Amino acid sequence: MDDEMESGNLGPYQDRPRTFPNMRSKPYTPLIFRILMRINIRVLFILGLLGLGAIFYIGASTSPVIVFVFTVCIISFCLSIYLTKWVLAKDEGPPEMVQISDAIRDGAEGFFRTQYSTISKMAILLALVILSIYLFRSTTPQQESSGLGRSTSAFITVAAFLLGALCSGIAGYVGMWVSVRANVRVSSAARRSAREALQIAVRAGGFSAIVVVGMAVLGVAILYATFYVWLGVDSPGSMKVTDLPLLLVGYGFGASFVALFAQLGGGIYTKAADVGADLVGKVEQGIPEDDPRNPAVIADLVGDNVGDCAARGADLFESIAAEIISAMILGGTMAKRCKIEDPTGFILFPLVVHSFDLVISSAGIFSIRGTRDSGVIGAIEDPMAILQKGYSVTIFLAVVTFGLSTRWMLYTEQAPSAWLNFALCGLVGIMTAYAFVWITTYYTDYKHEPVRTLALSSSTGHGTNIIAGISLGLESTALPVLVISVSIVSAFWLGHTSGLVDDDGNPTGGLFGTAVATMGMLSTAAYVLTMDMFGPIADNAGGIVEMSQQPESVREITDVLDAVGNTTKATTKGFAIGSAALASFLLFSAYMDEVAAFAHVPFNQVDIAIPEVFVGGLLGSMLIFLFSAWACAAVGRTAQEVVNEVRRQFIERPGIMDYKEKPDYGRCVAIVASASLKEMIKPGALAIVSPIVVGLMFRILGYYTGHPLLGAKVVASMLMFATVSGILMALFLNTAGGAWDNAKKYIETGALGGKGSECHKAAITGDTVGDPFKDTAGPSLHVLIKMLATITLVMAPIFL
Amino acid sequence: MDDEMESGNLGPYQDRPRTFPNMRSKPYTPLIFRILMRINIRVLFILGLLGLGAIFYIGASTSPVIVFVFTVCIISFCLSIYLTKWVLAKDEGPPEMVQISDAIRDGAEGFFRTQYSTISKMAILLALVILSIYLFRSTTPQQESSGLGRSTSAFITVAAFLLGALCSGIAGYVGMWVSVRANVRVSSAARRSAREALQIAVRAGGFSAIVVVGMAVLGVAILYATFYVWLGVDSPGSMKVTDLPLLLVGYGFGASFVALFAQLGGGIYTKAADVGADLVGKVEQGIPEDDPRNPAVIADLVGDNVGDCAARGADLFESIAAEIISAMILGGTMAKRCKIEDPTGFILFPLVVHSFDLVISSAGIFSIRGTRDSGVIGAIEDPMAILQKGYSVTIFLAVVTFGLSTRWMLYTEQAPSAWLNFALCGLVGIMTAYAFVWITTYYTDYKHEPVRTLALSSSTGHGTNIIAGISLGLESTALPVLVISVSIVSAFWLGHTSGLVDDDGNPTGGLFGTAVATMGMLSTAAYVLTMDMFGPIADNAGGIVEMSQQPESVREITDVLDAVGNTTKATTKGFAIGSAALASFLLFSAYMDEVAAFAHVPFNQVDIAIPEVFVGGLLGSMLIFLFSAWACAAVGRTAQEVVNEVRRQFIERPGIMDYKEKPDYGRCVAIVASASLKEMIKPGALAIVSPIVVGLMFRILGYYTGHPLLGAKVVASMLMFATVSGILMALFLNTAGGAWDNAKKYIETGALGGKGSECHKAAITGDTVGDPFKDTAGPSLHVLIKMLATITLVMAPIFL
Repeated sequence: MDDEMESGNLGPYQDRPRTFPNMRSKPYTPLIFRILMRINIRVLFILGLLGLGAIFYIGASTSPVIVFVFTVCIISFCLSIYLTKWVLAKDEGPPEMVQISDAIRDGAEGFFRTQYSTISKMAILLALVILSIYLFRSTTPQQESSGLGRSTSAFITVAAFLLGALCSGIAGYVGMWVSVRANVRVSSAARRSAREALQIAVRAGGFSAIVVVGMAVLGVAILYATFYVWLGVDSPGSMKVTDLPLLLVGYGFGASFVALFAQLGGGIYTKAADVGADLVGKVEQGIPEDDPRNPAVIADLVGDNVGDCAARGADLFESIAAEIISAMILGGTMAKRCKIEDPTGFILFPLVVHSFDLVISSAGIFSIRGTRDSGVIGAIEDPMAILQKGYSVTIFLAVVTFGLSTRWMLYTEQAPSAWLNFALCGLVGIMTAYAFVWITTYYTDYKHEPVRTLALSSSTGHGTNIIAGISLGLESTALPVLVISVSIVSAFWLGHTSGLVDDDGNPTGGLFGTAVATMGMLSTAAYVLTMDMFGPIADNAGGIVEMSQQPESVREITDVLDAVGNTTKATTKGFAIGSAALASFLLFSAYMDEVAAFAHVPFNQVDIAIPEVFVGGLLGSMLIFLFSAWACAAVGRTAQEVVNEVRRQFIERPGIMDYKEKPDYGRCVAIVASASLKEMIKPGALAIVSPIVVGLMFRILGYYTGHPLLGAKVVASMLMFATVSGILMALFLNTAGGAWDNAKKYIETGALGGKGSECHKAAITGDTVGDPFKDTAGPSLHVLIKMLATITLVMAPIFL
Repeated sequence: MDDEMESGNLGPYQDRPRTFPNMRSKPYTPLIFRILMRINIRVLFILGLLGLGAIFYIGASTSPVIVFVFTVCIISFCLSIYLTKWVLAKDEGPPEMVQISDAIRDGAEGFFRTQYSTISKMAILLALVILSIYLFRSTTPQQESSGLGRSTSAFITVAAFLLGALCSGIAGYVGMWVSVRANVRVSSAARRSAREALQIAVRAGGFSAIVVVGMAVLGVAILYATFYVWLGVDSPGSMKVTDLPLLLVGYGFGASFVALFAQLGGGIYTKAADVGADLVGKVEQGIPEDDPRNPAVIADLVGDNVGDCAARGADLFESIAAEIISAMILGGTMAKRCKIEDPTGFILFPLVVHSFDLVISSAGIFSIRGTRDSGVIGAIEDPMAILQKGYSVTIFLAVVTFGLSTRWMLYTEQAPSAWLNFALCGLVGIMTAYAFVWITTYYTDYKHEPVRTLALSSSTGHGTNIIAGISLGLESTALPVLVISVSIVSAFWLGHTSGLVDDDGNPTGGLFGTAVATMGMLSTAAYVLTMDMFGPIADNAGGIVEMSQQPESVREITDVLDAVGNTTKATTKGFAIGSAALASFLLFSAYMDEVAAFAHVPFNQVDIAIPEVFVGGLLGSMLIFLFSAWACAAVGRTAQEVVNEVRRQFIERPGIMDYKEKPDYGRCVAIVASASLKEMIKPGALAIVSPIVVGLMFRILGYYTGHPLLGAKVVASMLMFATVSGILMALFLNTAGGAWDNAKKYIETGALGGKGSECHKAAITGDTVGDPFKDTAGPSLHVLIKMLATITLVMAPIFL
């Protein structure tokens, strides 16, 4: 690739110093890829067919529902292959575009490899820790009676953890793989038609969305079916099927673990490059965004791919996996309490919902068609309207299929109308999702009051802009919290009154109602992920257009797509936070059940009036603050390195500004890559180590002061307070960041003095501050919340 | 005053437009002042003597301890009168200083009157609400048996509330009264000697500190003694003395109520003026701070008095009152459980601790002496070292007297070594206070790493400065939380093992141990408040020196004093937060006891695994975020008005910059005053209304869904989560603000380019953002936390 760059014709440059020298300095390929690449393609094909046959066989031995899920997933994968082929068949445009795109791909893939090799080393280390903990832990009486000994349960958990981690990694890779290929095709299409560019970006996003969601569903389904067959579940003397989902927790933990580091590393990368590029380029030198004279511009474009695409893929994968597993656990627990004859429906319900999710989201993606009269560059339609239309189609189908799924899976003769209550819970979830989208749009779109006020506050200086943005972000937590509160309480109430009762006649469906609402919220996950992935692809396409110096009309098209992408990205974050809030609450219940099972005593209360438990809460909330601090500080530090490098290049190569000298893009890429790999460790390790340390310390303290279960209680309260603080902090960070970004964009439309005014400069400061908020710390927090929930579940035995 | 300004000779101005026209436009005097002013001085004196006799008589009928407390308080008041006389006897300097000082005093007193008339109207309204709630509430069996009917308990609560509010108001007034008089005397003394200036500022601060602490102690003692005698406590068939402290809660609520609005209104005032003045003056026009050409400068100086002095007086008054009352309640509850023969010692212990506090802090204040060889302007000593020496004296005496007090008050034959354990708890508290001071200094003083890194990050622009500051603030929450955690757990453990046991042999002293630690922490409150009050007085003195254009050497002296004031202000805030955290935890226990008493069922667990309770926690944390948002936004909005006004004056009166025209200071004062009065209502009302609304709503929901006590439980969790989030948010806001301020000051010492460099401009932006953080939202939050605790205690009956 370096040779191509050397000999190619990159825009107006004549003398080209060697660029991207550091990218390939360590051409590392993870072991798994190397093994796969060495195998003959035919052997692979046969192996694949055999595998397919095996999983269908296992599925058929488990439940017809599993076969249905497998079938839908495999059809979706075929569909996604069609989407890739369609996208890849599009032309890549003129050579200057291809060269830029190649440089971006190189940088992104290089970083991805190094990052994931670090992550996989840590994952293996953690797997060994889990293994040793499980080998020395005590087993529950149920497990002993079902013949599930220490070593079996240890290997099951570790295998699930590693599979989760692997799948999460693949999800991230797929997201990045398609985006680095689609970006140049979108740029090229933008020369012809806005609609075609939009369609390519949507279909590329759709490809990774389907793969991510499909893989999450398929992974859980395969694990479930394998354990079912292997452990001989439901045969006499074996494990009950209602206890099976608890074995899947490791999968969720693995997924969260990888997603956290992917999000941290990618988030630090993308925002350090972005902030560094903006501070020198836009503020000091006054050159436009993505201008080829800016030495940090390639690093910035690489960042979009590793930060937004790869990380978001892993992140959404983890969201869906965590949500499916927690709902399965709750469904199992409830079915056991109510003594429902065939509990399979309640346990497998989440898999069915997400199978339908794949179907209806595909319908939504395909409802976005190309131009009818192609060949003519039409007026730019509002792409947001087109995406919204697709979303409406998906939502409508979601309501219908959700109703069908509840009737199919959740009908039980013990409570004939329960399924209707749960369908209403699903509706609550879907409405919550809608409300979240609306609230996020209200606070981050410049059509509305808040962003306009923020833009106005920029006119009195940098300081008032920041104060107004922080206030806006803090204020924006209120409505989502109210919505979440209403939906938790109402879904719980709907489930509670569903008619499902335990032996003593107590209603038991409440928590499962909340779980169903979460599923309702995520029932259009694939489409939402598509809209989200669309953003960075459009952003990248805009960068390529700008760098290859295309005419103004082409830039206009990509600018419009980019602006829409900003809004869809913000809404996805709200969405992820909302579902994280619900999923954590579910996992919290699962944790308490598990502790009760281990400790052989009821554990259904966490009493915050005990000083140690209060202290646990303090530590949990503090964890969120400290994590956010370290994530933001990492971006700040790395950005300073970039700023200094860019300033150095401008001083040492004065010809850059007149297009006479070419900047050394590769150095910025290398600086950002190595810094973000280093910086992601500290906050990530904090998140993993602190609940374990706190749990162990209070366990020991409890032992010496005669408080049984103290460690488990303190960890429970830590988890709960961290969840609440995490939700609020993430809402604050995401919304403030989005609002600052769009306030700047609003001013760039010409309002309040327009580009280059003092007001614009103040708005750029706000945007810079918002960058690590909305793309590093904010989106890491909801992964962190779920990882805390799964880590406490997996580590529960060592707290007692 | 206006006439004086008209005819006086203000610096270099010749033509003077009419200034301060709006200040006296509404010469409103609160009713109570008008009544008091109309009474003949001799009649007042006789009334005072009679009152003194009455309280001593009541005290003597209650307990010798109360007589001791009365005596100490009255001696302290005499001492404080000596301090005032000493300060007022100092000269006011040349007429130009006097004029500026008069203008500041006018503005401050005008705002104070209007603000407190608004607050008192709201207080009366709230008193009526409380009255009607108590008239319709159910009484506890204990109350009924002791003959404490509905109407008695209603009037007791309302009377306590109003007395608390009144005393809090007086505390604020005293703080401001002395500071507007001391400032000019400090400026004048700065012309002679740094040491003398320091001594005047310290003694003026000492005066209000002694009055504030003394009034808090005296108020509680009088209420206690009056109720004791009136209700015939401990006589057969009457109330038990152990239940008496619960009747004092209204006092704490009244104090918090006034302190919250005082802090909000004053905080918005001072920071809007400061930010507005800085943004145009320092950033746009490049003139120094407190330059007479800046039209907002008088408003800024007025703000120091109403925001820092008046508000902090009310605030510390409230801190001490809340802490005394919560400790008394816990002491009573514990004494009752252990069936201690004479529980008076445990109940009155906090009053004794704070009586000693008055004595030892006075010793500390008087240990700061004037120059030995007066008449010669010596080299500037480090004032921080002098203040620290005084603090060391106080701390040493505190350890000694605390030990004595525990032996005197807490010795009981049932557990002969309990007092020793409690003395150790006090030591834990004192060490916590020390640790807090150290941590705050580490994060906010530019001698240490964090602020230097922050200053360095300013060199890459406004954006990186803000990111670094926010990261620093978020990170700085970690150590204080660890310290608080360790001290809660260890104090609880010391109390738990004190040997005090209930009938069943369960140890009961744990919570009281935590209470004693809180008292230990606050055992030097009066000296800490003195150091705190010192700050704004020195700041104001610096302003007067600058405005009256004194020679450079005088400015140097006040600058050094000002810088020290900044550090002492920051440490006081850490102190206030730490004690708020502990006090809220105590009040929370009191709330649970009260609910149990009302509901006739045990209520000792708040179970966060119930969805509604989790929702309560979400809402509680959200309340903190929303409150901070509104407080910051208020400053931002008002500052924008100031910026526009100052810009307008610079444009319309171009002569201002050349000293040819005089700016219209009065208009800025009027704008800030009216805006801050308007803006303080919204966040204040939110804090008061939301726990009541949430409690009532969930009470109704609980009624319809068959959950008893749901309202009370949800409010408990709301309170707890709000406390935790509030502590963290306040730590974040205070430290970030202080660090930004000192990073700017560090650059102004000449580092990284010094004054006027781009780096300095970025640092000023950070300082501007930090202003509402550290002086509006931050210090309001710990008042808010305690107000939530007292409001839920007072309103408990309506939640069940």
